[in-house]
Amino acid sequence: MPQGKLLYAQSGGVTAVINATAAAVIQTARERGVSALAARNGILGALREELYSTSSFGPGALHSLARTPGGAFGSCRFKLKSIDEAPRHYERLIAVMRAHGIRWFLYNGGNDSADTALKLSQAGRKLGYELACIGVPKTVDNDLAITDCSPGFGSIAKYTAVSVAEASLDVQSMMESSTRVFIMEVMGRHAGWVAAAAGLAGNSREQPPHLILFPERPFEMRDFLSRVRQTVDRHGFCVVASSEGIRDRDGRFLADSGHKDAFGHTQLGGVAPQLAAAVAARLGLKCHWAVPDYLQRSARHLASATDFAQAQAVGRAAVEYALEGRNAVMPVIVRQRDRPYRWTIEPAEVKRIANREKKMPASFISPDGYAITAKARRYLAPLIEGEAPVDWGKDGLPRFARLKLKLLKRKLPEYSV
Amino acid sequence: MPQGKLLYAQSGGVTAVINATAAAVIQTARERGVSALAARNGILGALREELYSTSSFGPGALHSLARTPGGAFGSCRFKLKSIDEAPRHYERLIAVMRAHGIRWFLYNGGNDSADTALKLSQAGRKLGYELACIGVPKTVDNDLAITDCSPGFGSIAKYTAVSVAEASLDVQSMMESSTRVFIMEVMGRHAGWVAAAAGLAGNSREQPPHLILFPERPFEMRDFLSRVRQTVDRHGFCVVASSEGIRDRDGRFLADSGHKDAFGHTQLGGVAPQLAAAVAARLGLKCHWAVPDYLQRSARHLASATDFAQAQAVGRAAVEYALEGRNAVMPVIVRQRDRPYRWTIEPAEVKRIANREKKMPASFISPDGYAITAKARRYLAPLIEGEAPVDWGKDGLPRFARLKLKLLKRKLPEYSV
Repeated sequence: MPQGKLLYAQSGGVTAVINATAAAVIQTARERGVSALAARNGILGALREELYSTSSFGPGALHSLARTPGGAFGSCRFKLKSIDEAPRHYERLIAVMRAHGIRWFLYNGGNDSADTALKLSQAGRKLGYELACIGVPKTVDNDLAITDCSPGFGSIAKYTAVSVAEASLDVQSMMESSTRVFIMEVMGRHAGWVAAAAGLAGNSREQPPHLILFPERPFEMRDFLSRVRQTVDRHGFCVVASSEGIRDRDGRFLADSGHKDAFGHTQLGGVAPQLAAAVAARLGLKCHWAVPDYLQRSARHLASATDFAQAQAVGRAAVEYALEGRNAVMPVIVRQRDRPYRWTIEPAEVKRIANREKKMPASFISPDGYAITAKARRYLAPLIEGEAPVDWGKDGLPRFARLKLKLLKRKLPEYSV
Repeated sequence: MPQGKLLYAQSGGVTAVINATAAAVIQTARERGVSALAARNGILGALREELYSTSSFGPGALHSLARTPGGAFGSCRFKLKSIDEAPRHYERLIAVMRAHGIRWFLYNGGNDSADTALKLSQAGRKLGYELACIGVPKTVDNDLAITDCSPGFGSIAKYTAVSVAEASLDVQSMMESSTRVFIMEVMGRHAGWVAAAAGLAGNSREQPPHLILFPERPFEMRDFLSRVRQTVDRHGFCVVASSEGIRDRDGRFLADSGHKDAFGHTQLGGVAPQLAAAVAARLGLKCHWAVPDYLQRSARHLASATDFAQAQAVGRAAVEYALEGRNAVMPVIVRQRDRPYRWTIEPAEVKRIANREKKMPASFISPDGYAITAKARRYLAPLIEGEAPVDWGKDGLPRFARLKLKLLKRKLPEYSV
């Protein structure tokens, strides 16, 4: 086993359990006698030589870290260009790795991050520096190829299903003289994975959510309104879960309708208020709407135990793969069976994952386009099972990690990204 | 003790724990050998003679009922006019009570419900029918007079504080290259109790939420934006919790800005998107916003144990007061001490509560108008303590009650409300 340090970095939108992966990485490295560093704000910190030591984190800190949402070391939205386009970035990254004796780079993110891991491993070879790059999966969008699911998705799915179930009971009890229609907007600009998870709130189409709007299906206002009307006539109320990314037949996002607010600014997104306004005006039904936005992907208090376990498992496996001498791989989740859910972790080449997008299968959406199928249910159900542990404080709030983060002393000149 | 039945009804906006009150009412009545009925959709069901028997609910059903959000028997928004204005409603209500031998009416709601309980007790006396009317407190708005707090508020307060704490970690980790400002809109059209609860997410003004917008203070866009700017300069990000009811100096609700959507409909409320649009356009900062709407008041999975205990206690006390022969009273929560929180239940006359609104004291808001004071913190902190029990199913969803509700056979002609 070569001597050296391991660098861990977080990338892209964070999740309720990405820090569980981080804690598992640090813990596993420590058990193998390897010093783990963490980059501040993802690859940006690696470029700027902004690196944290993790050696001062005691067992209590790692325990809390695993139970803390967000990205404890900071994340970033920054896509590294190709080696030919931005050679100086790669030279810099390798220089930083070399200066700190980093032999293993673990990049925790989505498609882009797998791509970065691949390019960086190529750059190392080219520049004569042995560096193993391992992708570590994470994304609430669930759009990573090959892996059964993406860590982070199970928890947003659980949040969505539980919230829809709860809010539906609220609406149902008020329908006689108040709100008749409730519309909840969920994440998923390009794929309806999160919207589909809302379907777990009920066991059949007779139960809420009565209508799910998927970005995979063109949205037709007239048909939607007529179905809302039918649902209210039948059940007295109607609960809708809509993806933020629904579009009309011309591919125009409903959220980008371009209307202006009181200050003349173009209104920021928000499919739910658009739909609610149409229901109220055209059907004359009182309508409420919710947009949980970041609440849904940071709700660590409601994380799935399955997701939590998978987030930890990919972290552990990533370190093991690195120390076994693997390069340009990602630990992926392989489903062995549905019920009871059994899964294993296996390595997959990042080149098979990078820059690809796993779409939701057409067979997951009912023929009419407003519900999930039994097949979708079989896939989704195990991912929300179990409740991830939470440390509740006496004050009624979850105890989150408060890591003392201290940057390592620089060895190289400053670098401007 | 007079022979007779007890009628329980739910009124107004429901909460995460109103069914805990319902379960306690049914259980306590049963222990005293009294048969409890429940009205369908509040006072409307009492008028229409739509009454459920509760005698078939076993211990398991009552256990689940206490752990189910929404109003299990249906609620309503219907304010009974005065006896002089609508005598036929009162005559009908007394006729229904008489027909079913109902001697005690427990109305679970807010100010309006206390008022209804008062009027109905007067009507009974006038019409020569002995009927004891007990108000049972409930409202997420926390605006009931006399009681230390209103059952339902502690849970929405906990939801708000936890959600802000979690989402803040998300935003903080993304601030380098993505979202800088996050705005969460919370309930409270007339009073800032829920907005104030967001302040529990941090221990000081250095921690998120950095700015709280209260309906008690006139909103000034210029000042708000300059504070957002300052906060981002200082901390790198800014988290805002805004009441839905903020207004400008002229008393105009920000949410009622009258702009139209793509279909020419007036946009439904939404303070958060308004504020976000202004932050994005005028400060050039990427901004996300959330409107949890009903999610916040139905989040039984995150209910406060304190709130849960109080919701049960007022239910029990209401039955005891009724059977003791009291009339036109409401069980209220009396704070004995702050830390540790000690409270008792005492009866208060509903005429002291009806149609009054408890405002948040000016001393709860910091002089600059954007934070809570130590005094507010001392009041709010105990209300979110503890986690109310949740029965999680194997499927990863909370197990909610599925009561078999069957209407009693009518004894009177139909009645049109």
